Amino acid sequence: METVVDNIAGYDYGANELATSPVTVKELDLLKQTITLDSDDQKYLRMAGDVLEPQTESIVNMWRGVISSMPHLAYYFKNDAGKTDEQYKTRVKERFKQWIMDLCYKPYDQDWLNYQHEIGLRHMSAKKNKTDNADAAPFIPMRYVIAFTAVINDSIKPFMAKNGHSLGVIEKMHKAWCKAVLLHVTLWTRAYCDHEW
Amino acid sequence: METVVDNIAGYDYGANELATSPVTVKELDLLKQTITLDSDDQKYLRMAGDVLEPQTESIVNMWRGVISSMPHLAYYFKNDAGKTDEQYKTRVKERFKQWIMDLCYKPYDQDWLNYQHEIGLRHMSAKKNKTDNADAAPFIPMRYVIAFTAVINDSIKPFMAKNGHSLGVIEKMHKAWCKAVLLHVTLWTRAYCDHEW
Ligand code: HEM
Ligand code: HEM
Repeated sequence: METVVDNIAGYDYGANELATSPVTVKELDLLKQTITLDSDDQKYLRMAGDVLEPQTESIVNMWRGVISSMPHLAYYFKNDAGKTDEQYKTRVKERFKQWIMDLCYKPYDQDWLNYQHEIGLRHMSAKKNKTDNADAAPFIPMRYVIAFTAVINDSIKPFMAKNGHSLGVIEKMHKAWCKAVLLHVTLWTRAYCDHEW
Repeated sequence: METVVDNIAGYDYGANELATSPVTVKELDLLKQTITLDSDDQKYLRMAGDVLEPQTESIVNMWRGVISSMPHLAYYFKNDAGKTDEQYKTRVKERFKQWIMDLCYKPYDQDWLNYQHEIGLRHMSAKKNKTDNADAAPFIPMRYVIAFTAVINDSIKPFMAKNGHSLGVIEKMHKAWCKAVLLHVTLWTRAYCDHEW
């Protein structure tokens, strides 16, 4: 099972209109080496996907709870007047759920690479708000995107324990998850940076 | 015990010449919140420091081993002719050992903040090689600095187990370590970026 919801609004994975990532497959390969993300991790990611699939709604709600509890982050879903754009949040949520599945199941190939760059652009000024015609703050500072990996990684572990896997297996799924999140976020920072990226 | 070696060459922590970090204390505070690095973590970091202090040489050797095993990273200690600058490696090593101690023991105040910016600059073109008058590659791509946190975090755990703490305590020291490394590296990326940082 690879798709949670058919026809997710604004989910352009694999779309022809998507630009080619400025990151090459060769660079991706070296990045994976640096992170030590290997085929064993990819196996545990698929196992994690099987555990997480029925839980994506709860997981994203939990992350949303953390963001709502921090005004300096909640800010990025609000407009100038300080009002949260609920339609924006609802639409982005479906893509966020799908991202959990893609991280676990998708091959990290050229289509995947292109969409990672797109997600980076959607966090910064180039494309934030555009997909959903939203009226919120114009970009998310890169430092918060990197920093939020702490929450994304810490809080996923209990969800991985739901299918009764042994502690050793949960540990391996979790380590694979952390490496994969690091890979994604590192690729997203490309949109914010220039030639010393 | 806060200083491993007196008079470490090029170690300018707290030096008057050091520029003030472009990151404000207020921004630092929000970043710590985002990472959920709290006073409890700071307590476990000090415990970790006590365990790691006699091991800094072995720890840095182990990280160096990983870097040496990956040509695309070993490259950044080499000159144009492909020869490793051994003096450079030796000098940087002492600062790297001291960094482990600083991460665990130092208050994250203005002096600390200023030195984090300096470390960022020393990884990119503004200041790489300058401190040691080295002749190596001119900058380390930001993506590798972020990505290498996977190695820095995974490999530290066995060293934390050396003083016979319970698994629960080791887990807490490790979680605090991971958050602290994330905070450091996030701050270092400031040197590479501009106003959407
Ligand atoms: C590890 C950190 C993060 C992860 C894994 C993450 C993940 C995602 C994903 C998967 C999407 C949907 C991408 C798509 O369009 O398909 C998204 C969009 C979004 N995220 Fe993040 N995010 C992170 C950090 C943050 C932070 C710190 C904020 C600040 C509140 C944030 C706010 C948003 C917003 C506002 C959107 C909608 C962007 C748009 O206008 O298209 N994200 N994020
Ligand atoms: C999480 C990732 C990393 C950490 C924690 C880290 C830590 C450090 C520290 C503490 C220093 C000494 C700072 C000082 O001058 O006081 C340093 C310098 C240095 N690091 Fe890293 N580093 C990381 C990533 C990398 C990577 C990926 C490379 C690539 C090989 C690298 C190569 C170097 C080099 C060449 C220097 C000397 C810079 C100079 O010319 O002053 N580092 N690093």
